[in-house]
Amino acid sequence: MKKIIIVGAGFAGLNAAVKLGNVPGLEVTVIDRKNHHLFQPLLYQVATAGLSPADIAKPIRNLLSRYRNITVLQGAVTDVDKDARIAVTDFGKFEYDYLILACGSHHAYFGHDEWEENAPGLKTLAQATEIRGRILNAFENAERENDPKEREKNLTYVIVGGGPTGVELAGAIAETSRFTLAEDFRHIDPQATRILLIEAGPRILPTFSEKLSLWATEQLKDLGVDVRVNTFVSNVDSSGVVASEQQINAATVLWAAGVKASSLGKRLNFPIDKQGRIIVESDLSISGYPNIMVAGDQAHFAHDRTQPLPGMAPAALQQGRFIAENIIREIAGRPRSSFKYVDKGQMATIGRNKAIAEFGRLKLHGFTAWVLWLIVHIYYLTGFRNRLFVTLQWGLSYVSFRKGARLIVRKEWRSYS
Amino acid sequence: MKKIIIVGAGFAGLNAAVKLGNVPGLEVTVIDRKNHHLFQPLLYQVATAGLSPADIAKPIRNLLSRYRNITVLQGAVTDVDKDARIAVTDFGKFEYDYLILACGSHHAYFGHDEWEENAPGLKTLAQATEIRGRILNAFENAERENDPKEREKNLTYVIVGGGPTGVELAGAIAETSRFTLAEDFRHIDPQATRILLIEAGPRILPTFSEKLSLWATEQLKDLGVDVRVNTFVSNVDSSGVVASEQQINAATVLWAAGVKASSLGKRLNFPIDKQGRIIVESDLSISGYPNIMVAGDQAHFAHDRTQPLPGMAPAALQQGRFIAENIIREIAGRPRSSFKYVDKGQMATIGRNKAIAEFGRLKLHGFTAWVLWLIVHIYYLTGFRNRLFVTLQWGLSYVSFRKGARLIVRKEWRSYS
Repeated sequence: MKKIIIVGAGFAGLNAAVKLGNVPGLEVTVIDRKNHHLFQPLLYQVATAGLSPADIAKPIRNLLSRYRNITVLQGAVTDVDKDARIAVTDFGKFEYDYLILACGSHHAYFGHDEWEENAPGLKTLAQATEIRGRILNAFENAERENDPKEREKNLTYVIVGGGPTGVELAGAIAETSRFTLAEDFRHIDPQATRILLIEAGPRILPTFSEKLSLWATEQLKDLGVDVRVNTFVSNVDSSGVVASEQQINAATVLWAAGVKASSLGKRLNFPIDKQGRIIVESDLSISGYPNIMVAGDQAHFAHDRTQPLPGMAPAALQQGRFIAENIIREIAGRPRSSFKYVDKGQMATIGRNKAIAEFGRLKLHGFTAWVLWLIVHIYYLTGFRNRLFVTLQWGLSYVSFRKGARLIVRKEWRSYS
Repeated sequence: MKKIIIVGAGFAGLNAAVKLGNVPGLEVTVIDRKNHHLFQPLLYQVATAGLSPADIAKPIRNLLSRYRNITVLQGAVTDVDKDARIAVTDFGKFEYDYLILACGSHHAYFGHDEWEENAPGLKTLAQATEIRGRILNAFENAERENDPKEREKNLTYVIVGGGPTGVELAGAIAETSRFTLAEDFRHIDPQATRILLIEAGPRILPTFSEKLSLWATEQLKDLGVDVRVNTFVSNVDSSGVVASEQQINAATVLWAAGVKASSLGKRLNFPIDKQGRIIVESDLSISGYPNIMVAGDQAHFAHDRTQPLPGMAPAALQQGRFIAENIIREIAGRPRSSFKYVDKGQMATIGRNKAIAEFGRLKLHGFTAWVLWLIVHIYYLTGFRNRLFVTLQWGLSYVSFRKGARLIVRKEWRSYS
């Protein structure tokens, strides 16, 4: 009986587990801090009140319950005894024959962790509901505010980072203020909302072709988003941000600018890059530790490529499956193979009827790309129930111009009077 | 132009507002701490992972946006200058001609507020998601626990209070452990879960007839719930509860035992009863302050009755409407009328196909009562979208024996690594 431990049940870990599920001779343990697998590509819709957390998340143990050789445990791996092959967790020690690290990434603030308080990032459901509360609260505060300066500050939203998440947040906030909230306020005009999308590079969506990037910029401008490229953020505090030496007063600042891999790689003295990603061999194992493999956002994979593979769902999914297949192959006495990334293209959405998609030489924008984006996301979403509910939520929001989850839920749960 | 301020947008406040909406000559301001109206009768389903918060809550300003004479402001009323007729809030002062207090109630711990930490009550969405997290976390902890005593403690759930909320929580937790989670664990048998329902009185559901109360007790026992009547809780801490001098080790204790009205009545020196409810005249106004009316859980209404009217949705709804109608009548120069409660009966659900209902002399239990319970709750639920989604969630859960929202969302939203 070979023991396999998978740390993290994101796209990489979950897909590795599914491949290893019910394979004779394998005993698999999946360890995650959270009880749910999250469909991160739609997390921005939870943050902007379009979907509920349960629409895009499923309990890990539920997703894996049909595989009788898999045990799911909630907790954190804190250390690894690489020689004795023991994973140390906050609730006990576990021997392994193979260890799969798929711990993902979190936001990085270029050495300014203190910015997080005023500029949350978007990686978890807790962060999404926090951001949702901040976006909605700012409108509430503007409605009850008499000071025009304070009102303007409350109606100013700054999104730092012009990648897909930043663009999707900016587009969704713009649509919420223009369509969803238009009728609901008496003292403010939600359409007067200022939304700034700040990007340090020369253009937004830099992984897409220049043509699509410029098209997306025009669409955002049509929605009223102030897109500022070549702009550097040098400070974030409760007053707002300083962007290229200019103070911008804003009650809501969202961070979509840079990520850092889980600190486990550094703590275990594995070879890492600047973003904390573990540098892996062509079979995704770590040099000197052939039985420890890394997948997803935590892996720095640069073989057959000029640039390391970026942290994105298709890469994580393929790597998770690949590692599982390699382990099965090795146990059967066959040699390991090398990982080859199959480029599935990329997509980003700006808003209603507006998306971009790029598959090799095929470049799409507008309604066709948007329909494609809908289909792909529904298809990859885990679980029949989630697919049904997301489809319905989107259908209803599309015809009604309203969003279904405009809730501010206080973090404090105790009684008050 | 007459100014009306409504404090609180629960069943009472919201229904008063709707009645006053678009009535010429009236300027209505609704003030609530939260941004949403909550359908409290289904809150236990959020706490037990059956529904999502957004399924049973809607933004107040969205519900009232069609009434152009209503302004919704998020905030708290902290004081009232009764002579100058000014409501003081945490964001400014507001003059009124009529003030409607509908601030509701929160849990009371018989002078032991320190119990709340280990025995949360169920009144808000934040409390419901907190309870959901605790229930699910206890199973997670049991799964990874090696000490049999600790495992048993994690699998023991104590619900204090045998009213409808306590019964609904106990029934839902029992069904979750027996059906929903049965296949998902490897080291524990969720069916071994111990669920104790503790009631100080001689029987659970004391507002129902004895026959229905006993039938419900039998159904709970069939589901494996240990129903203990005439049992007093004398302590709650992190080890569990002390019930009639006996220590019960339990990781999860839920409080459904007593409520206290908003403290505003006491702070304003209005005549109040032991539970902090403001004692009202037959027209729901306060003696000496005819232009201040109280509705819902905050009101102690005892005219035409032997007992004061209990805090329940139909009473709040009727009182809110009644107050609005009386104000419209008075402004039109007609005399006020006296409030008469129309008894709509009462219902409680134990689980699948199991509910009780009592309408005057008509007493129902079992499948018929359960179908009736479903219909009534869907009918009264606010909003087409919520009705559709709750119906679908229930339908899917009914056929699949699975629940749709088994999420533990950490309160802490910051990045970690």
